[in-house]
Amino acid sequence: MISVGIIGAGRIGRVHVQSITTRIPEAKVRMLADPYMNEATRDWALSLGVQRVTKDYHEVLDDPEIEAVLICSSTDTHAQISIEAILAGKHVFCEKPVDQDAEKILEVMDVLKRHPVAYQVGFNRRFDHNFRAVRRAVEEGRIGEPQIIRICSRDPEPPKPEYVKVSGGMFLDMTIHDFDMARFLAGCDATEVYASGACLIDPAIGEAGDIDTAVVTLTMENGARCVIDNSRQAVYGYDQRAEVFGSKGMVSSENDRPSTVSVSTASGVTGDVPLHFFLERYMDAYAEEVRSFLTSVEEGKEPAPGIEDGLKAVQMALAAKVSLREHRPVRMTELFQ
Amino acid sequence: MISVGIIGAGRIGRVHVQSITTRIPEAKVRMLADPYMNEATRDWALSLGVQRVTKDYHEVLDDPEIEAVLICSSTDTHAQISIEAILAGKHVFCEKPVDQDAEKILEVMDVLKRHPVAYQVGFNRRFDHNFRAVRRAVEEGRIGEPQIIRICSRDPEPPKPEYVKVSGGMFLDMTIHDFDMARFLAGCDATEVYASGACLIDPAIGEAGDIDTAVVTLTMENGARCVIDNSRQAVYGYDQRAEVFGSKGMVSSENDRPSTVSVSTASGVTGDVPLHFFLERYMDAYAEEVRSFLTSVEEGKEPAPGIEDGLKAVQMALAAKVSLREHRPVRMTELFQ
Amino acid sequence: MISVGIIGAGRIGRVHVQSITTRIPEAKVRMLADPYMNEATRDWALSLGVQRVTKDYHEVLDDPEIEAVLICSSTDTHAQISIEAILAGKHVFCEKPVDQDAEKILEVMDVLKRHPVAYQVGFNRRFDHNFRAVRRAVEEGRIGEPQIIRICSRDPEPPKPEYVKVSGGMFLDMTIHDFDMARFLAGCDATEVYASGACLIDPAIGEAGDIDTAVVTLTMENGARCVIDNSRQAVYGYDQRAEVFGSKGMVSSENDRPSTVSVSTASGVTGDVPLHFFLERYMDAYAEEVRSFLTSVEEGKEPAPGIEDGLKAVQMALAAKVSLREHRPVRMTELFQ
Amino acid sequence: MISVGIIGAGRIGRVHVQSITTRIPEAKVRMLADPYMNEATRDWALSLGVQRVTKDYHEVLDDPEIEAVLICSSTDTHAQISIEAILAGKHVFCEKPVDQDAEKILEVMDVLKRHPVAYQVGFNRRFDHNFRAVRRAVEEGRIGEPQIIRICSRDPEPPKPEYVKVSGGMFLDMTIHDFDMARFLAGCDATEVYASGACLIDPAIGEAGDIDTAVVTLTMENGARCVIDNSRQAVYGYDQRAEVFGSKGMVSSENDRPSTVSVSTASGVTGDVPLHFFLERYMDAYAEEVRSFLTSVEEGKEPAPGIEDGLKAVQMALAAKVSLREHRPVRMTELFQ
Repeated sequence: MISVGIIGAGRIGRVHVQSITTRIPEAKVRMLADPYMNEATRDWALSLGVQRVTKDYHEVLDDPEIEAVLICSSTDTHAQISIEAILAGKHVFCEKPVDQDAEKILEVMDVLKRHPVAYQVGFNRRFDHNFRAVRRAVEEGRIGEPQIIRICSRDPEPPKPEYVKVSGGMFLDMTIHDFDMARFLAGCDATEVYASGACLIDPAIGEAGDIDTAVVTLTMENGARCVIDNSRQAVYGYDQRAEVFGSKGMVSSENDRPSTVSVSTASGVTGDVPLHFFLERYMDAYAEEVRSFLTSVEEGKEPAPGIEDGLKAVQMALAAKVSLREHRPVRMTELFQ
Repeated sequence: MISVGIIGAGRIGRVHVQSITTRIPEAKVRMLADPYMNEATRDWALSLGVQRVTKDYHEVLDDPEIEAVLICSSTDTHAQISIEAILAGKHVFCEKPVDQDAEKILEVMDVLKRHPVAYQVGFNRRFDHNFRAVRRAVEEGRIGEPQIIRICSRDPEPPKPEYVKVSGGMFLDMTIHDFDMARFLAGCDATEVYASGACLIDPAIGEAGDIDTAVVTLTMENGARCVIDNSRQAVYGYDQRAEVFGSKGMVSSENDRPSTVSVSTASGVTGDVPLHFFLERYMDAYAEEVRSFLTSVEEGKEPAPGIEDGLKAVQMALAAKVSLREHRPVRMTELFQ
Repeated sequence: MISVGIIGAGRIGRVHVQSITTRIPEAKVRMLADPYMNEATRDWALSLGVQRVTKDYHEVLDDPEIEAVLICSSTDTHAQISIEAILAGKHVFCEKPVDQDAEKILEVMDVLKRHPVAYQVGFNRRFDHNFRAVRRAVEEGRIGEPQIIRICSRDPEPPKPEYVKVSGGMFLDMTIHDFDMARFLAGCDATEVYASGACLIDPAIGEAGDIDTAVVTLTMENGARCVIDNSRQAVYGYDQRAEVFGSKGMVSSENDRPSTVSVSTASGVTGDVPLHFFLERYMDAYAEEVRSFLTSVEEGKEPAPGIEDGLKAVQMALAAKVSLREHRPVRMTELFQ
Repeated sequence: MISVGIIGAGRIGRVHVQSITTRIPEAKVRMLADPYMNEATRDWALSLGVQRVTKDYHEVLDDPEIEAVLICSSTDTHAQISIEAILAGKHVFCEKPVDQDAEKILEVMDVLKRHPVAYQVGFNRRFDHNFRAVRRAVEEGRIGEPQIIRICSRDPEPPKPEYVKVSGGMFLDMTIHDFDMARFLAGCDATEVYASGACLIDPAIGEAGDIDTAVVTLTMENGARCVIDNSRQAVYGYDQRAEVFGSKGMVSSENDRPSTVSVSTASGVTGDVPLHFFLERYMDAYAEEVRSFLTSVEEGKEPAPGIEDGLKAVQMALAAKVSLREHRPVRMTELFQ
C-alpha cells in the first residue's frame, strides 16, 4: 500500500483522485492540495476516501508518509513544484506539459539527475488499450519498418478563448499528445517538423492568437513520415485514431464507441458515434498510467514515459510553432541540440 | 450508504464483492458468508474493505444493519435462503436461476407477496451496454414490431462433466440467460418452445446426460419467432450477439473486443477475438445490475428483472427440456398455466 | 464459342440474356423463345446481339447449332421442357425449382440417366463471392467440423398475392435457395426439418394461404444444426448472410453494399444499406453460374449444382411444408427414401 | 450507337477496349491503333468485337465514322495526338496526364478553344463508387464546410526502375490522381503545396532519381488542409481511401475487398485484404468514365473532368516537385498564374 499526495484538484486532479480511490486498491490518497480548496471539493474527496485536504501543497511535500506525488496543478507551476518534490525525495508523476518552456524542463532534469527519483509524465494515451495494441504490433515487427504514420486527434468541442490565451497554443496544449504518440509509435525521434494550420472553426480562437485546425508533418529519424491532423471541433465526438504503415503491413486503430449496436432502416445503417471526450475515452488509461507509475515506484524501476519524453514533445511543439510562424519546415537541430 | 451482505463466496459472489467494493461507493459489504470460508478468502475480502466474514449465512440475515442481501450460493439453496431473507425483512438480489424447480420459485413468490421486499434476479445481460442499446432501439420503436429475433450465445470452453451433472442441464444452466434475453428484447412472453440439440463437442458431456450444442426456436406472444443458438465451445472466445428484426428495420449488436486494432498484411486483415468470457465481457454489467438493485431499494421501487422474470425463464428452460426429450414443440400452457 | 438458346424471356430469362451477351464473350445467344414474345422484347434482345427470337421453344430444341439451353420459363413447364431438351441432346441449365413436385424431378432424372447430358440447376447463390468464400473456408478445414449454421435470407419487398398463389408457397419459392445453401455450406444432407412460420407482414399473403416470416431448423447428417430465417420484407434491403460455426472457429459473411462510405455526424455514424435485391446482389453470380455451366459443357464435366441438388432442395421444402402443417419435426426419410 | 477509335493498345488501352466491348452496348470500337500492333493483339481485339486494327493512329483520325477517340498512347504523345484529333473534329478522351509539361497542355487548351469538341481527362477515380459517394456527401452539405481532407493512395507493388525514369516522377505518375481527388472532394483548387518524401522501399527507385514514399500537404482555396500519403508498396494490396472532415461531420470511405467474409479462430478474426490493384478496384470506374464521356458526346454537354482539371493536377504535381527539391511550401501562384 503506497501513500500518494495529489497537488491540484482541477479536472485532471479529480480524475486521478477518482481512479486511485475506486480502481487502484494498492494505493491510497493521503492528501489532496489545491489553493482554491473549498467545502464541496473537500466533501467530495473525503467521501471517496481521501484522508486529508489542504490549500498548501507544501504540506504534501512535508508529509513523510507520502511517497509519491501527482502534480496536476496549472502548467506554469509544474516545473517549480517538480523541483521541490524531487528535493523532498518524492517520486513524481507530472501532468503534461512539464512546462511550456523547454529550458525549464531542462532545469528539472538537472535537479533530477542529482537527486534521482521516479519521474513520469502524464502522456495517458500511451496506456490506452488501442494505441498500446498499435505500438505492440510495431514492436513485434508485424508491420516491418514504419514508413508512414497517421495520427488523427480531434476534440469534440473547442476550448474557451480565455483558456486558449494561456494554453501556450494548440501545439503545446493539444498536439503535444500527438507529438508524443508519434515518437511512441515510431520508436524514434522526429528530426524535422512542418506545421500548417488555420482558424476555421471559431474566430475568437484566431483573435486569441491561435489556430483550431492543423496538419503537421514530421520526419522521423528512421526516415518515416508522420502526419498529424488536429481539429478543435469534431461534431461527432472525440476522434482518436492512429495508423502505422510499414514494409510488411499496416496496423490501425478505430475509435471506441458506447456500444457495438447498429440500426438498419430504409435510410441507412447507423451506429454509435465515438465516446464523447477524453474522460469517456481515456478513463481506463488514466488509471493504467498511475498504476504503471506506482509499479515503477514499488519496483524501483525507471518509469515511462519519463521526463525526456516530456521534453521531446515540448520541443516538437515549439518547433511546430516556429514552422507555422515562419512558414517552412524546421529541423529540430536548428532549435535544440 | 447502504449495507449489504453477500451469501456465497464462489466465483459470482466474489465478482459482486469486488464490483461493490471498487465501483459502487454508495454501498459497503458488511458481511460475506460462505460455509467453506477460509483464510485466503477472508484476507482477500478484508483487503477489499469487506467488514466481516462468516461461515453461517444466518449471521447475515440476523444483522440488523444489513438492508440487502445478495444470494450467490449454490443454486439448490437459492429458494430456501430467499425465503429466510424475505422473512428477515431483507431486500434480495438472487443469482439465476432462483431454482431449477418452478414450484419452488412459486413458493418464494408466495412468501414475497405476503412480505413484500425488493427482489431482483441476476440476469446481468440486461445491463450490458450492447443488449441494453438493442432493447432501447426496440422500445423506441425504431425497428417497428419485432418479427424475428436471433440470439447467439456461445461459451469459450465447456464446463467440467462433474459440474454438468448438477447444473440442471444446458437449458437451465446456460440458455436460461437467453430465454430471459428473448423476453427482454421482444418485450413479451414466449408461448411455445422447440429445442433441438446434440452433444458434438465433448462426449463426457453426453455421458453426463447433457448436450453441448443447441438451437431453440421460440414463438413469442406477438407472433415473432426467436432463435437461440448455443455452443459450449467457441474457440475464438465468448460469442454474445443479438439481433431484432422488425417491420421498420433491424437492430443488431456485435461482440466486444479488447481493442479496435487491426493488422493488415499480405495474408489478411486481422483483428482481435471477442473478450474471452463473462468476467471480461460482463464486469460492467455486474456492477450495473447491483447498482440498479440498490437504487430500487433506496427509492422504494420494484426492481427489474424481478422474480416473475426469474420464474418465466426457468419455465422456458423446463419446456425446452420436454421439447428435446419428446422431440416436438411444446406450448407453455401445456406445462404451466 | 458455344451457341445457347434461352427459353423464357421473363425477369430471370432476361438476366441471362444480358449476362451472356455482355459478360460471356465465349458464348452467343442464338435464340430466345417466349410464348409472349413481343416487339419490345425482340428489339431489346436483338440490340444485345441475340440472333433470333421466337414464340415457340421447339424451334430452340430443333436448332442443331444450339448446344445448350437455359430453361427460364414458368416453373410448371421446367420438367417437361427439360425432358424434351434432354431427348433433343441439348445440355440443360434449368432455373430453380426443377418442379414443385419431387416425382416429376425424378422423372427428369430418369430420362437424364438414359440420355446423359450436362444438367445444372440455377442455384445462383453458390456462385456469389461471399458464400463461395464461406464454403471455401469450410472446405479448407479452417473452422473444423461444422456444428451450427445460420442462414439469413430476407427479401426487401413481398411478392404480389397473385404470385404467392402459384408460387408453391414460401418454402418452395424462397427458402429453397437456403435449403440448397445449407447443404452447400455443410457439405452434407439434412436428415430432419422443423419449420415455424407466420404471416406477420401482409395479411393478403395469409389469405393466399402462405406465410411471410419463417424460421426453419435443420438437422444435418453430420449432426450440425442449421437455422434459416426468412422474411418477405426487410425494409433496409436484401439481407443475405451466412455463418458457419465449427470445432475450430467460425466463418461468416456480411451483406454487399453500394459503397464502403460512412458519414459521421452528431447523430450517428451512417453507412449504406445492403444492395437492394437479387438483381443488384447476384448479377455477378448469375454470370458465374452460366460461365461454370458452359465450362462443364465444353470440358465434358458433370456440372454442379446438378439435378440431384435440385431434387434435395425441393424435398426439404416439401418436408418443411409438412412440418409447418403438422406442427412437428419431420424426418426426411418419412417422406422420401 | 457511337463509333469510337482507341489509340494505344497498352494496358490501359486494352482496359478500355474490354470495358466498351463487354459493358457498353451503346458504343462500338471501330478501330484500335498501336504502332506495335501484332497478331496476338489483333486476334484478341477482333474476338472482342473490335472492327479493325491498325499500326497508324492517323487512320483512326481519318475515319469519318469515328466520332470519338480514346488516347491511351504513351504520355509524351498525348498532347500532339490530342491536337490532331481535335483538328480532325473528333471528341477526345485522353488518359492522364495530358502531358508532363503544363505548357503543352495550355497549347491543347488553346486549340480546343478555337475548335471546340468534348474533351475528357482519364481521372477514373472520380467515377469510383466510393469516392463518388464521398463527393456526394460533401456536395449535399452533409458534413458542412470541408476543413481537413485525408487521401490515402498506396500501390501494392513498385514500378520497374526503367519505368520510373520516364514516368516524370512519383508526383506526376501516381500522386496526380490524388491531386485531382483533392480538388474533386474539396470542390475547389489548391493554393499551396508542401511535399515531403523519401526513398524507403527500393533503392533502385532512388537511383532513378525518384522517391517511393511521400506525404503532401495542400492548402485549399477555402482554407481546408488536405493530406495525401503515398507509398509504392503496400504489401496488403491497393490502399485507396479518402476522408473529408468538415464543420458538420465527416465522410470516409474504406477499401473494396473480394468478399465480406471473416474467419474467427483462436488467433484472431481475419478478413480479406483489399482488391489487389487498379484493374480489380477500378474496372467499374473505367467503364463509368467512358460511359460518362460518351453521354456527354451524345448530349452535347461539356464532359468532366475536363482539360482544365487535367492542367490543374499537373500543375500541382509540378509544384510538389519544386517543393520537394527546394524543401519548402510552394504557392501555386509562384509557378502559374
